[in-house]
Amino acid sequence: MSLTFFTPGPAQLYPTFEKHLQTFVSEQLGSISHRSQQYRDLHKFTVDQLRTLLNVPDSHAILFLGSASEAWERILFSCVELESFHLVNGSFSKKFYDYSLGLCKYAHSQEKPMGEGFSASEVIVPEYAELICTTHNETSSGVQMPVSEIHKLKQKYPDKLIAVDIVSSAPYPELDFNLIDTAFFSVQKAFGLPAGLGVWIVNEKCLRKAEEIKKQYSIGAHNDLPTLWKNAQNNETPATPNVMGIYLLGKIAEDFNKIGVKNLRKETEQKADLLYKFIESTNGFSSFVKEKRYRSQTVIVTNTDQSSAGIIKTIKEKGMVIGSGYGQFKSSQLRIANFPATSLEQVQSLIHELKAL
Amino acid sequence: MSLTFFTPGPAQLYPTFEKHLQTFVSEQLGSISHRSQQYRDLHKFTVDQLRTLLNVPDSHAILFLGSASEAWERILFSCVELESFHLVNGSFSKKFYDYSLGLCKYAHSQEKPMGEGFSASEVIVPEYAELICTTHNETSSGVQMPVSEIHKLKQKYPDKLIAVDIVSSAPYPELDFNLIDTAFFSVQKAFGLPAGLGVWIVNEKCLRKAEEIKKQYSIGAHNDLPTLWKNAQNNETPATPNVMGIYLLGKIAEDFNKIGVKNLRKETEQKADLLYKFIESTNGFSSFVKEKRYRSQTVIVTNTDQSSAGIIKTIKEKGMVIGSGYGQFKSSQLRIANFPATSLEQVQSLIHELKAL
Repeated sequence: MSLTFFTPGPAQLYPTFEKHLQTFVSEQLGSISHRSQQYRDLHKFTVDQLRTLLNVPDSHAILFLGSASEAWERILFSCVELESFHLVNGSFSKKFYDYSLGLCKYAHSQEKPMGEGFSASEVIVPEYAELICTTHNETSSGVQMPVSEIHKLKQKYPDKLIAVDIVSSAPYPELDFNLIDTAFFSVQKAFGLPAGLGVWIVNEKCLRKAEEIKKQYSIGAHNDLPTLWKNAQNNETPATPNVMGIYLLGKIAEDFNKIGVKNLRKETEQKADLLYKFIESTNGFSSFVKEKRYRSQTVIVTNTDQSSAGIIKTIKEKGMVIGSGYGQFKSSQLRIANFPATSLEQVQSLIHELKAL
Repeated sequence: MSLTFFTPGPAQLYPTFEKHLQTFVSEQLGSISHRSQQYRDLHKFTVDQLRTLLNVPDSHAILFLGSASEAWERILFSCVELESFHLVNGSFSKKFYDYSLGLCKYAHSQEKPMGEGFSASEVIVPEYAELICTTHNETSSGVQMPVSEIHKLKQKYPDKLIAVDIVSSAPYPELDFNLIDTAFFSVQKAFGLPAGLGVWIVNEKCLRKAEEIKKQYSIGAHNDLPTLWKNAQNNETPATPNVMGIYLLGKIAEDFNKIGVKNLRKETEQKADLLYKFIESTNGFSSFVKEKRYRSQTVIVTNTDQSSAGIIKTIKEKGMVIGSGYGQFKSSQLRIANFPATSLEQVQSLIHELKAL
């Protein structure tokens, strides 16, 4: 039986994935040199499609890494000489903070319990922090920081660099890259691809900062920003990249562009609305995130009165896979991914089965 | 027209690749959670197959990274507090050295021109160097360091750690992991898979060293050795890995084990022998590597009297792709990969066409 995955990553593969994979295989793209014009054209195609989709200006490069976790490290190496600042309200924002400690930086944080969100007005960034690290969508708790609040935060601290984790939300958030210095995501979430590729969007200010830091400190050796940037100017990467992932991402981004990102966002909101309405109106379910404006549109988290493991099992028998809660909430919550790969009809089917429990 | 790739990576995909890819897709393995038992079983299968294939004892973990270049960085972070030592005789051994400088380590080197190899007896490792970095197969020049010389080098300096780059030769070299502390390779060479996955074999001594260094210095934050090691004990990875790559690698390693690594090695030597005999006996061609014992069995490099670009073009019209020389030798050399994905018959066809030039 073919399953439909509503898990928050790895997630349901996008419906066109198989077709694009077939083309990759039949055109023997797995064997082409990463120093050939054929590769450079493929690379440029993906960058161009992402640039259109996410409205990324030429001030920013779009770079490829092994994963979004690698982006945490490369951003900290490149943008922080001594002190970083982190908004922490879940496991993934906490890991960004931990990475800073791991690089022996002085990492400041402002913390909230899981399930709560941040507004710009309540955030106080320490004077010497060089980089503000935010998480648009906390995959562990289903909290989102509204894009308007992220923009306000940068406007409140215009002299500091700001990084936005959009791992489990891109291309949903409509970031203004005139304000956002760097952002990153991975392909196994809303892009509906197998894992193994991270995308790092980063501007020239970060590059200049990395070059400055490099005079005194290590900024890493593998995929360091100046080397990545230089190679990207020529549509190449420093080491042999995940050519298959880059190709597939370009094709999916092209599919998204054909639909139009506005339509994708609208559909995401429609589906999220159905899910939240179901949760709010059904006995045995309640939204983990109490404040509506902080509720994620892409990873919906519900408390469950019953053990969530039982619900997951029953729903799986109906051909659908939903995620458990994260960490301490493993058995008392469900996480339901709401990515473009699952249609309105599939979300309705899921709700239908959840209602029948 | 379907092409046969004799390029040194990305290279010809292994004949069973498509079949395994099809299974990956039909079993929906691109959507499974990397924290599920299903993933852990898949992970363990690949590790077990590699352990058998490369005869890796339980003292060593087999870990997954984004690329072999990432392994350079992680090895240096983990095994070098202050000083490393590098045998440098080509572009890739030089990059390993450059990575050490990039991490602000004191990097020593002993250098030879491209095309020349090292014997253990001539190598002098500085007293305070903690790690000896060797390259079994220099992809840029077609020089190999005989495995016996690598073993002798470790026996000459038993108190130092030794790392072996087997990127473009594994599973050909029969390393004795009772002597070798760490080695690494990527999958787009002799394993005949698309790029995007690095494999890091590393022993407990390296782990202890990393834990020691960590008390005073950063050992990196992403894929740091203690975290990778801890996750590997549970057949997991710290971040979402390239599940597709890990799955395919396990299946190819299983195919290799069915053939038997001894047979694979013998066939590699037979094919290399044919290629070198052709080069030595044909006007217009001559081996770049003069000393036979340093000639690579997996990446064969020949000088060409004619411009190599012309030869590459003519051969491509016959349905075969061969690599150009590296760097300064781009137009005066050919690099011919000799990996398991290309059969004896295909090598014979290539030689036939080269003879007809």
